[in-house]
Amino acid sequence: MKYVTCSLRNETVRHLGVVRENRLLVLRNPAASEWPGPFPSSLLELIEAGPEVWRRMQALAESLPVSTDTSHPLERVRLHAPIPQPAKNIVCLGRNYAAHATEAARARGQEIKVPDAPVFFTKPRTSVTGPYDPIPWDASVTQQVDYEAELAVVIGVGGKNISAARALDHVFGYTIINDVSARDLQQRHMQWFKGKSLDGFCPMGPWLVTADEFGDPQNKPISLRVNGVTKQSASTADMIFSVAVIIESLSKGMTLEPGDIISTGTPEGVGFARTPPEYLQDGDLVETEVEGIGVIRNRVVAENQ
Amino acid sequence: MKYVTCSLRNETVRHLGVVRENRLLVLRNPAASEWPGPFPSSLLELIEAGPEVWRRMQALAESLPVSTDTSHPLERVRLHAPIPQPAKNIVCLGRNYAAHATEAARARGQEIKVPDAPVFFTKPRTSVTGPYDPIPWDASVTQQVDYEAELAVVIGVGGKNISAARALDHVFGYTIINDVSARDLQQRHMQWFKGKSLDGFCPMGPWLVTADEFGDPQNKPISLRVNGVTKQSASTADMIFSVAVIIESLSKGMTLEPGDIISTGTPEGVGFARTPPEYLQDGDLVETEVEGIGVIRNRVVAENQ
Repeated sequence: MKYVTCSLRNETVRHLGVVRENRLLVLRNPAASEWPGPFPSSLLELIEAGPEVWRRMQALAESLPVSTDTSHPLERVRLHAPIPQPAKNIVCLGRNYAAHATEAARARGQEIKVPDAPVFFTKPRTSVTGPYDPIPWDASVTQQVDYEAELAVVIGVGGKNISAARALDHVFGYTIINDVSARDLQQRHMQWFKGKSLDGFCPMGPWLVTADEFGDPQNKPISLRVNGVTKQSASTADMIFSVAVIIESLSKGMTLEPGDIISTGTPEGVGFARTPPEYLQDGDLVETEVEGIGVIRNRVVAENQ
Repeated sequence: MKYVTCSLRNETVRHLGVVRENRLLVLRNPAASEWPGPFPSSLLELIEAGPEVWRRMQALAESLPVSTDTSHPLERVRLHAPIPQPAKNIVCLGRNYAAHATEAARARGQEIKVPDAPVFFTKPRTSVTGPYDPIPWDASVTQQVDYEAELAVVIGVGGKNISAARALDHVFGYTIINDVSARDLQQRHMQWFKGKSLDGFCPMGPWLVTADEFGDPQNKPISLRVNGVTKQSASTADMIFSVAVIIESLSKGMTLEPGDIISTGTPEGVGFARTPPEYLQDGDLVETEVEGIGVIRNRVVAENQ
């Protein structure tokens, strides 16, 4: 199932929808008598409602006819981030691909060392934008805007001290995040939060693919292009800490909740580690792709110039 | 005004209240005709409702009689964190007092250097607990639980690129946070998020003191005692980056929202920087005090032993 959060043409209200045959179907309460309890009005509400409601929603989504009356061509709707207002900051991993850990350490003049434990930091909800939204760039705030293609995991069933063996049972689905980073701020403020958290620095989408449809998260090609030129191209098989191990580590002593988003780190090829460094510029088009999900496409747009 | 979030005896529902003459008054809709719009059911809803509703609520709170019929002795109610479910992670500062930056660098064998820019990291809502709640300690997760007394700022009016000169106009009020820290996890995971984010590692309260009543945030004694022995004793005058400068720096390119919480860092005297290091143990009582607000009191309680 591919769940989307979208607005129809000329509307601002956000709908929960599903993509089938490359068309959008809005999910609405079929008839008051058929749906027990409140009908989820957002993907986050659906996830929070638990497995019984997930099964019911999937059955509803699969039962809808895909006709021109009941569905919309994707190019005629506006897609938002699948979870545009997460209830907590998005947890991200740093240096979770060995080749990227190496390039980053070399570029920073640090000892080249693969992490012994996952490196976690966060991005606030104010950074989240849609899959085709611009990446705003204010040169008075940062001169070093960089990209990071990432596979993101959305938790379905919460828990604490989750074992790696059971971790994937806690996953609702997957989406794509570009963990846009202001490298100068990341360095200047020592901890990474500030450089990772500017408005619009977390494009997400284009949809959430449920875990059953996505399958094994550790064998997916992941890539990123700037103006059509491939800059990152790897496989999620190259993660140092797998999705299962990440969930085990993160949930140790810390409760994960339904709808929590974990972005699993980026492979090699980021801009700041290139020789010479390449930062994003006004007008650049960044395409981030994970096989089995799709592509998000974001143009860098200078502000306050 | 001292706003609290509380439950009355034998109830689980949380109320918005106010403390006057050391008694709790629950704030309820006086009569449907008198309150335009929805009556805020929580402190976060009150803050999000904006200045006009703040004035109205203050007038209501001041108009209530403090009698035995209409109010409760504080020791008979349960106080929660003023904002028990923040909408985003709490932003915290590291190394914002020079003497603490020095002791921390020395203990870590790092170059002794005062930060050039605020060091920001975050704690999730799952870490937040009440002013008198236990600090849970699971020895299978961390062996090095430490304390950090902090003044926390709650944003009232959101904004981006806020100047230091106008920053305090954006503050709704102040509260106390003990930024409890698992030093071993903080080190092992490189970035600080994981070691700062265990369940129950963010006791907060006992109430929120509005900015008008608190006054200048840069001249308040701040202290912390473990089992009655003073471990931290300083003044918020010693902050490297003042509340105003913190808000300017944090809001650069990043929108702050009503209800956002910023914890402004801890002074010298933390456990891990002592010789030999002193970590919290099962049964320890930690009291964190900021003059003009009050004291939070949290006992360390071992779990899963």
